[in-house]
Amino acid sequence: MDGKRTKLSVADFNPVTLQDDVYYVSVNASLNERICDLMNWHDLRAFIDWDKYYSTMGIDRIMVCEAVDEGVIVDAGSAITVDLMQDGLYQGGFIALGLRAAQEAYSRLSPALNVSFNFEVDLTIMAKNTPDALTVGFLAPLIEKIERLGKPIFLTGGDAHLLSRFLPEAVVREDLIFQGMNKLIEKGVKC
Amino acid sequence: MDGKRTKLSVADFNPVTLQDDVYYVSVNASLNERICDLMNWHDLRAFIDWDKYYSTMGIDRIMVCEAVDEGVIVDAGSAITVDLMQDGLYQGGFIALGLRAAQEAYSRLSPALNVSFNFEVDLTIMAKNTPDALTVGFLAPLIEKIERLGKPIFLTGGDAHLLSRFLPEAVVREDLIFQGMNKLIEKGVKC
Repeated sequence: MDGKRTKLSVADFNPVTLQDDVYYVSVNASLNERICDLMNWHDLRAFIDWDKYYSTMGIDRIMVCEAVDEGVIVDAGSAITVDLMQDGLYQGGFIALGLRAAQEAYSRLSPALNVSFNFEVDLTIMAKNTPDALTVGFLAPLIEKIERLGKPIFLTGGDAHLLSRFLPEAVVREDLIFQGMNKLIEKGVKC
Repeated sequence: MDGKRTKLSVADFNPVTLQDDVYYVSVNASLNERICDLMNWHDLRAFIDWDKYYSTMGIDRIMVCEAVDEGVIVDAGSAITVDLMQDGLYQGGFIALGLRAAQEAYSRLSPALNVSFNFEVDLTIMAKNTPDALTVGFLAPLIEKIERLGKPIFLTGGDAHLLSRFLPEAVVREDLIFQGMNKLIEKGVKC
């Protein structure tokens, strides 16, 4: 409200202290238990037209989609979700591993692959050393697939800026999830 | 020799029992210790023109490259290595996670992502359920990247047949590593 934004640990936060109407999305099961009886807390899941999406789709992923009418939404966090919106309609998407998860998975395969990605690498060139081979192997197929979807690209999530190096035409929108929530609240009803 | 092939556990195998000349590649450090003093055992590492490759490149990967003069070599095992050969010269490559490693990495991210890949999925379509979203997310970028390299594709390794579903024009060559070793032995000297 009033553009003010606060970030708190769920453990340090008592939902009862908020008297105003609260519109929320949550993927935290224990928080959900604490708020489901509070009359002023409104779960935005109830505002979603579920025919547009699918039942096991993450609510955070749906919210970033709601923010965009036309484009590819890339949410780069623990996983990298890639979703396509066209004329305000969800066209489907896919889920890649997040950067950290991918690096950890390589390191589990062999001590020789326990190296950091090289974010300075040229993804268009076949690699001739191990860090580049892993970085190109993970990022080049993914980045090229995203580009070939042929729509405006919106990047969000913790690794958005890192990925934007490889997607220079993409727009970074750190608050895309809140934009989606706002849009849904303003609509107010299922459409 | 004579086309006869035997598969043994390293633990059950005593290298001293072989009297003939043996040409080998090995990535097993403890086996290497047991054979380095045996005069009739010849490490094919000594036959490789290392200027063509890079020093930390896996010896198994080099051997499958040696088998091919012109093409893309995809070795789908615990990792999926993709390498490009042109006029007998190594052009570079990259390393993706193997199918099992990728699925395990997804399952570690969230119980919701602990699902099996759907190898019946159409990789050209954006997904609208979780198994398809993971399968498309991992395989579609990789398969399309391999195809766009624009060369004949040679598939080898334990998951070669599984991947060949998505690369119908690829040739599966289960013994590519032995073909590469043979070629190198016949050449006999660095070229």
